[in-house]
Amino acid sequence: MKLWNGAGRRIYMQEVGTRDGLQAESAFVATEEKIALVDALSRAGVAKIEVTAFVSPRVIPALSDADAVLRGIERRPGVVYSALVPNVRGAERAIEARADELNLVMSASETHNLANLRMTRSQSFDALSAVAHIARDTGVAINVSLSCAFGCPMEGNVAESTVMEWCDAFIGTIGARGVTLCDTTGMAYPTQVAALASAFRTRWPDTELTLHFHNTRGMGLANVLAGIDAGAHRFDASLGGIGGCPYAPGATGNVCSEEIVHALELMGYDTGVNLGGLIDAAKRLPALIGHDIPSQIVKAGRRLDLHRPPADFGAIRERAHGRPLPAAPQV
Amino acid sequence: MKLWNGAGRRIYMQEVGTRDGLQAESAFVATEEKIALVDALSRAGVAKIEVTAFVSPRVIPALSDADAVLRGIERRPGVVYSALVPNVRGAERAIEARADELNLVMSASETHNLANLRMTRSQSFDALSAVAHIARDTGVAINVSLSCAFGCPMEGNVAESTVMEWCDAFIGTIGARGVTLCDTTGMAYPTQVAALASAFRTRWPDTELTLHFHNTRGMGLANVLAGIDAGAHRFDASLGGIGGCPYAPGATGNVCSEEIVHALELMGYDTGVNLGGLIDAAKRLPALIGHDIPSQIVKAGRRLDLHRPPADFGAIRERAHGRPLPAAPQV
Repeated sequence: MKLWNGAGRRIYMQEVGTRDGLQAESAFVATEEKIALVDALSRAGVAKIEVTAFVSPRVIPALSDADAVLRGIERRPGVVYSALVPNVRGAERAIEARADELNLVMSASETHNLANLRMTRSQSFDALSAVAHIARDTGVAINVSLSCAFGCPMEGNVAESTVMEWCDAFIGTIGARGVTLCDTTGMAYPTQVAALASAFRTRWPDTELTLHFHNTRGMGLANVLAGIDAGAHRFDASLGGIGGCPYAPGATGNVCSEEIVHALELMGYDTGVNLGGLIDAAKRLPALIGHDIPSQIVKAGRRLDLHRPPADFGAIRERAHGRPLPAAPQV
Repeated sequence: MKLWNGAGRRIYMQEVGTRDGLQAESAFVATEEKIALVDALSRAGVAKIEVTAFVSPRVIPALSDADAVLRGIERRPGVVYSALVPNVRGAERAIEARADELNLVMSASETHNLANLRMTRSQSFDALSAVAHIARDTGVAINVSLSCAFGCPMEGNVAESTVMEWCDAFIGTIGARGVTLCDTTGMAYPTQVAALASAFRTRWPDTELTLHFHNTRGMGLANVLAGIDAGAHRFDASLGGIGGCPYAPGATGNVCSEEIVHALELMGYDTGVNLGGLIDAAKRLPALIGHDIPSQIVKAGRRLDLHRPPADFGAIRERAHGRPLPAAPQV
């Protein structure tokens, strides 16, 4: 199957750790550390970075320095610097701080939208439209992230037709450049991903489609591969795998950037990312956020990061070679 | 692609937690608890269980009760009760305790074989042959597990031809009923798995092929799917994901049985396993081994294990519906 052989196909990695990850942390990461992190990520070759969120500092104190961070980073050509904005006020701040793209969020599930954003989906959509109106006037691109596109932790399944209808509203009515289908609580599974991504690609071949998976139930990489097989080539991921899930304490959240890049590079895909640079950046996270990170690659190293044989290996080999017969009893 | 739609295809789940998992634990799990665990696994519908290992109690004290466990379990028709044996002495004990199958181990890597078994591969093969000779006389089946089939943590890549040559020796010379290709330290990646499993299946269509993956670098489920796509349908996995990796402290080891079953069932495969029963068994592990387990499914629940909306959800909804305009400022 073609999927197993990447053959140099380009996959675009989009970093969400600095927003989706850090917003879930109780520690406040210093502004200059955040800037250094974003700069390390862009130097490593990540295609897009969700740098921060322009939200109320009362609601998310961890990102209260959104303006300073977005103004302080080094702008590397080709990298898209995105910011999450919940409303017109946030959009104005993000545009002033020179965001390349505004990321807007609403949920495919009415219950989740109410519980999370305290609005109906219809009210959220109106708010999104207002932001899009401003963005259009300033030439800043719009991406809409649709939460719970693969299921709602309270409602259960979300119909594919519901997801497609909202996408139609984002693309047709709002004029979004891109849509992100978000697996907010890790309910996506490969069969579903392949079907939904394929339906999206067929209907909107020219719209930027991003898939945003969480590894909550261990299916993150498998979902990425199902997405690739269905024609998707943009994936959100979080450095170190940071970012939890409020519905599953202790479970991992976002898929881990260096794990996805490590796997895709081995499979022959071109992620454009310098894996070493990415791992170095991830290794700085525990000191910044004050705890261990989920990243399996930081723990175990890359596939060919080899280990030395045991210290007495020479003696073991000599003894073995000196034995004419196997150690086990003969029959 | 056919892979994403299981369409009821049968996948055989083989449990290694009671051997590969428990042998790595410092806690000694009481014999009756081990027996209860094996019985819970067979009741849940697992196809094969590596019950224990007949090794020196000095080397692996955690499994010093191998005879009592294998004699004490309930024998469910259709379930294969396997035991790891390192030599003729172990094989004799396992056969006396009524093992259905003996699992023999050697490594595809000379360095790993020496470091791990203190013999050359050739000496290990002679020992295996001696065990197989005994097994043949008693009608007990032989499976050979080839460690480092996807790479050696000290040597690096292992040539596919090396793996195929050893498989040929196991099948052609020893007459093994089955071969397990083991990803001992989590070096396998999907492209490689698809190629190796496909080469094996083509050459030995009638030999029982098992793939044994570790999730050390987050590629466990993706490797299982690559294996299925290449025609494999037997997979080792460990309840709760227990069993570490000596080369990566803190990293996860074996792929987690309930994670694999959860994913494959969602994809429409028939694992024959009652997932609820499997999860219940996994939930008992932390009390037995004295620490948390890697299982993401135990932490996060199944995909449709839903959550209640927040306690003030009624009030949130009422307020939202009472608002004629979106909460966001209008333009």
